[in-house]
Amino acid sequence: MVLKRKNLFNSLLFSVFLLLLFSSKIFAEDGYRLWLRYDRVADENKLNEYKKNIKAIHFPGDSPVLKAAREEFLNGIDGLLGMRVGFTEKITENGILVVGTPESSKIVGSLKFSNGLKKIGEEGYIIHNVDIKGKKCILISANTDVGILYGVFHFLKLIQTNKSIDDLNISESPKVEYRLLNHWDNLDRTSERGYAGFSIWDWHKLPDYISSRYKDYARANASIGINGTAVTNVNAKALVLTPAYLEKVSALADVFRPYGIRVYLTARFSAPIEIGGLKAADPLDPEVRKWWENKVEEIYKYIPDFGGFLVKANSEGQPGPQNYGRSHADGANLLAGALAPHGGIVMWRAFVYNYDKDVDRAEEGYNEFVPLDGKFRDNVLIQAKNGPIDFQPREPFHPLFGAMKKNPVMVEFQITQEYLGQATHLVYLATLYKECLEFDTYAKGEGSTVAKVLDGSLFGYNNTGFAGVSNIGTDRNWTGHHFGQANWYAFGRLAWNHELTAEEIAEEWIKMTFSNDKEVVETLKEIMMASREITVSYMTPLGLHHIMAEHHHYGPGPWVAVSGRPDWTSVYYHRADSNGIGFDRTKTGSNALSQYYPEVGEKFSDPKKCPDEYLLWFHHLPWDYKMKSGKTLWEELSYKYYKGADSVKWMIDQWSSLSGKIDEERFKHVSTFLKIQAKEAIWWRNACILYFQTFSKKPIPQEHEKPSGTLEYYKSLKFPYAPGIKPSW
Amino acid sequence: MVLKRKNLFNSLLFSVFLLLLFSSKIFAEDGYRLWLRYDRVADENKLNEYKKNIKAIHFPGDSPVLKAAREEFLNGIDGLLGMRVGFTEKITENGILVVGTPESSKIVGSLKFSNGLKKIGEEGYIIHNVDIKGKKCILISANTDVGILYGVFHFLKLIQTNKSIDDLNISESPKVEYRLLNHWDNLDRTSERGYAGFSIWDWHKLPDYISSRYKDYARANASIGINGTAVTNVNAKALVLTPAYLEKVSALADVFRPYGIRVYLTARFSAPIEIGGLKAADPLDPEVRKWWENKVEEIYKYIPDFGGFLVKANSEGQPGPQNYGRSHADGANLLAGALAPHGGIVMWRAFVYNYDKDVDRAEEGYNEFVPLDGKFRDNVLIQAKNGPIDFQPREPFHPLFGAMKKNPVMVEFQITQEYLGQATHLVYLATLYKECLEFDTYAKGEGSTVAKVLDGSLFGYNNTGFAGVSNIGTDRNWTGHHFGQANWYAFGRLAWNHELTAEEIAEEWIKMTFSNDKEVVETLKEIMMASREITVSYMTPLGLHHIMAEHHHYGPGPWVAVSGRPDWTSVYYHRADSNGIGFDRTKTGSNALSQYYPEVGEKFSDPKKCPDEYLLWFHHLPWDYKMKSGKTLWEELSYKYYKGADSVKWMIDQWSSLSGKIDEERFKHVSTFLKIQAKEAIWWRNACILYFQTFSKKPIPQEHEKPSGTLEYYKSLKFPYAPGIKPSW
Repeated sequence: MVLKRKNLFNSLLFSVFLLLLFSSKIFAEDGYRLWLRYDRVADENKLNEYKKNIKAIHFPGDSPVLKAAREEFLNGIDGLLGMRVGFTEKITENGILVVGTPESSKIVGSLKFSNGLKKIGEEGYIIHNVDIKGKKCILISANTDVGILYGVFHFLKLIQTNKSIDDLNISESPKVEYRLLNHWDNLDRTSERGYAGFSIWDWHKLPDYISSRYKDYARANASIGINGTAVTNVNAKALVLTPAYLEKVSALADVFRPYGIRVYLTARFSAPIEIGGLKAADPLDPEVRKWWENKVEEIYKYIPDFGGFLVKANSEGQPGPQNYGRSHADGANLLAGALAPHGGIVMWRAFVYNYDKDVDRAEEGYNEFVPLDGKFRDNVLIQAKNGPIDFQPREPFHPLFGAMKKNPVMVEFQITQEYLGQATHLVYLATLYKECLEFDTYAKGEGSTVAKVLDGSLFGYNNTGFAGVSNIGTDRNWTGHHFGQANWYAFGRLAWNHELTAEEIAEEWIKMTFSNDKEVVETLKEIMMASREITVSYMTPLGLHHIMAEHHHYGPGPWVAVSGRPDWTSVYYHRADSNGIGFDRTKTGSNALSQYYPEVGEKFSDPKKCPDEYLLWFHHLPWDYKMKSGKTLWEELSYKYYKGADSVKWMIDQWSSLSGKIDEERFKHVSTFLKIQAKEAIWWRNACILYFQTFSKKPIPQEHEKPSGTLEYYKSLKFPYAPGIKPSW
Repeated sequence: MVLKRKNLFNSLLFSVFLLLLFSSKIFAEDGYRLWLRYDRVADENKLNEYKKNIKAIHFPGDSPVLKAAREEFLNGIDGLLGMRVGFTEKITENGILVVGTPESSKIVGSLKFSNGLKKIGEEGYIIHNVDIKGKKCILISANTDVGILYGVFHFLKLIQTNKSIDDLNISESPKVEYRLLNHWDNLDRTSERGYAGFSIWDWHKLPDYISSRYKDYARANASIGINGTAVTNVNAKALVLTPAYLEKVSALADVFRPYGIRVYLTARFSAPIEIGGLKAADPLDPEVRKWWENKVEEIYKYIPDFGGFLVKANSEGQPGPQNYGRSHADGANLLAGALAPHGGIVMWRAFVYNYDKDVDRAEEGYNEFVPLDGKFRDNVLIQAKNGPIDFQPREPFHPLFGAMKKNPVMVEFQITQEYLGQATHLVYLATLYKECLEFDTYAKGEGSTVAKVLDGSLFGYNNTGFAGVSNIGTDRNWTGHHFGQANWYAFGRLAWNHELTAEEIAEEWIKMTFSNDKEVVETLKEIMMASREITVSYMTPLGLHHIMAEHHHYGPGPWVAVSGRPDWTSVYYHRADSNGIGFDRTKTGSNALSQYYPEVGEKFSDPKKCPDEYLLWFHHLPWDYKMKSGKTLWEELSYKYYKGADSVKWMIDQWSSLSGKIDEERFKHVSTFLKIQAKEAIWWRNACILYFQTFSKKPIPQEHEKPSGTLEYYKSLKFPYAPGIKPSW
């Protein structure tokens, strides 16, 4: 009996010890951990199943990437299963996890891969249940160390999302090669269009002080397959190319490298003048070429795996080759030539437009670049925004997708919500991204989706890429809004595999970030899936676009009529008058529609066939135009604005129903932000309806409540310190 | 036996339960919790003693302040002792903690206070071991709820610092009435001279979103007795006085109120023009007066306990009464008149100087304000920096202290380390503050210390105050450097009680922030106590001052000879030439020394008697001047610079000796910053020695290593994005 008591005592003491051990894993729910939370699996059956299947681990290898992968694995299992897994050199029992490349592990090297590692390329991985020496094992394998890292993250996700791990037959590889975040971060730590505080790059203290955020940033990106980051603003300063800053960038690259992430920089086209002391930056000038060659060589001394340059040239005041009468191809090839020997690439942005009263701004990117197709060097990608204007809540796809057949076009999505409520609106953007990816360009007949252009399968592009403009800042939860994390996550997942549905991505993100509870998952998925359409409704329904306030883009500004340039106003885009509203982009108007393949043109050219979502993007229609719904255009517009604002209340109700199922800290935070969203949705609705009413001269349909403020009130609102713009702007 | 086993089992289960309960209290050691860490008492004997003495608590009362105090108490005891204390209405056993004012608690109301609550004023408190109804109790009492709050923080500190609680006879009240932080924070969230990230005030999301930081900020301040905060930059924008911003300020005030903290704003003198539409802001214009009266009334509608205005006028480009030919008294009285009916005050800064080639900048504050003594309204305080120039590593005290006899002068200390290594140097500033406070002004004969001027005892001031320019920012640990927290802490403690020694304050801060381990306490105290003198040595030894780089003030710049104004250069202050170095402020020079009382003058006027610390502040001396040490001035100067830089290595050794006794996260963070400090100390040393050598023409004494860089190299260093300045400067 005494003995038994002692045993009992010891076993309980051991429990206490375990609790002490793991209590250090308990964190404040401030969102810092993103989707990599690794909290104990709540489902006891699942927990036991996992423990049964993970008895020990065989995971040799000493490369920095493998070390990072192993550390992640151990921390993940420690948190998720509450146990330290032992290492084994030999397969002596069931339940051993075997992780490695044929090079890093002799055991893996000795296996025969029936369906081969060959198919999965340099970044792919497989996760299989296999028999090794008669023992049931789980194999995570890849051709490269970074493949192993991705495989480890995938395996941890299986547990985080409570998936079964006894019938695994996973084979993954990315559909696109360059998967980058673009940080529009300035060297003074302001972040252009950033709404989550300030830049996480503490340039001043680099390279000496390495914030712990840098590694967590790399982990988060690696977990979703992002393999590159352009750390500086496209509105660039040449200073970042000087030794003092290259040393800092190099320190960041050192942190990112074990996570398979390369650093890219934005290159200011006039850098040879500003930091090189040259008189000009003409791309055809041999002295300029030499300067860039030397500069690039210098960069590679600091960062041996430097990724390349992201360039905004001859756009919104940035210098470029046209300053010297040269083309974008001349400019891009200058930099690409310098980078080519080192394996670097140029991402040359297609976001260029100069005001010309005879040309629709929507047409300018196409006009500039299509004639240059085939003239860019092999290591150049043309980076086009998803739509032809500028990251609006809804745009049709950019006509460059499908039009550039020789030189690859990559897409630039905006993750930061410049035009979608900034930090405080819950808007899940995967549906927006998917809408673009699934558009059919008809470039090679039906099925020529934007996605197929981007992944290179349509035209056989030699390089492929996705860029996402980051929503990351110094806010504790990284993205300001807890749900902003979902957009970072979704971008990464789609860059890896654009065939995933928005719903699938939402589901795994919710499970990892909040809970596997069915009600939580279903409710949040419903909110997320509806959120972007709701936002479009209270901001820019029926194809309206670019009617936000000036400069800071915070809130509505349909009345903006005078600006630095006509194509920076709102009236340029909505063209409301007593006759009607909308931008005629058919033959009777700007004819921008003609930039698309005829099949696309057919879908949109007739207002009767044109989907409501794009109606006012392509057509100017009278206020009493009869909509498909039977309502007049004015009634439908009003309905959309009211419906959108009302739907935010629905979102609040849905969220509130989860009280008690979400930790208090995040529950309260999101609740507060939803209230702000509801308030601002009404602000958008009232301001736009009252403004457009001055043209329609029609009453707001009776079923809708009257706006509380006057148009003058809404016009009077000023926000001189709204975030995301530099104070000096 | 079965029963016993069950008992054992239950008691162990209960331990497990407790551990689960408290495990949620375990945090990452990122410094966010400041000195309010409340981790379990490590000393088992102490822990048991505390538990024995705290059996239950009697703590009634429902005011917001009492609720905040009770919440703090419960969280503190929960963490420190690992137990939830039960409440009791009656005194039925020993070990009851009785907390309340005579109003909030009937039990307290029934007590007879032999040494009285009368003596401790509105913010004081007592903590006594008392017998109540024959039971041994601990009493925390005060006249007001905020006194209780302060008492609770003091009681928790006793436990945090492992003090005995069985012989308590504490009676505390602040020596100074207004104890404020000044935030030089802009509305765009940049922070002038801020080195810990950006402003913690998220103006854009206020008043809707209340960051959890605001409450933690209030808790930290209340714990050290700070009772006011001026939330906006002294280089002010009138916009903060408009309704949209007052609503935001009001939301902050609501968070701070339960912690006894009032909000103050900076008032831009030209606000009547900028936001009031008036043509001028002449303080004698009745229309202007009316405007301020109305504005102040409006402010009090938003914030009923609004504290008042902090004003920088006619200083460094800020508008002020002199724009209209009026005096500082006219200006201050204008605002004071508007505030008086509401109980608000004006803190009018004495930091004014206009370049005049015949006047030493050190004299200007005195010249401006002494003639106005007695002309300010009762609710005005003149806020003077500790020294006559500008927060230099070492300055003599400001001659206004002792010279203003009728209108009170309050002190402005800088907590943010603008001139003391910014975020990355470990410099404990309590020794600097104490040096100022202990200076003898001789205003009323020997013993007329600055402290006695400030606490009102010397001249019977009706108002007294301390202001500290905040070092708080968005960095996770609040102050960038973990040891920056000590300066925030020390400022508060000295504002409460200037008689505390720097050492006492360091000791309690170390124990609360790091550990009660003797070696940790002694070693850190030694580092901290030495740190400021070390910094003076490698930056500005022997009374040198204002020789830093321009604008950002980061690093050395003794060569700065051309700037916006001569008194913004370095050469204006060090006056080095082939004959010698130093600023002659005696009769043969600017005679600024004559602004002090004669006894002070005597101490400094003869270079042979003048302490080395102030030698070059008051004297210009030849390079081969014989110092008290026997060395020449040049040798002594070199010695100081080398000694200072070497001493940082000593700090590193000391810190390193604590490896294993400090949590890894903070240990590594501080180690990194110490390495930066060592590097920058050598930078300061080399740059200054090489520069001054161009005048002294003497070799660097043989025992010192040769500087690694050239003077040209050091002069060439540029830091366009150094923090703490607005990008547009």
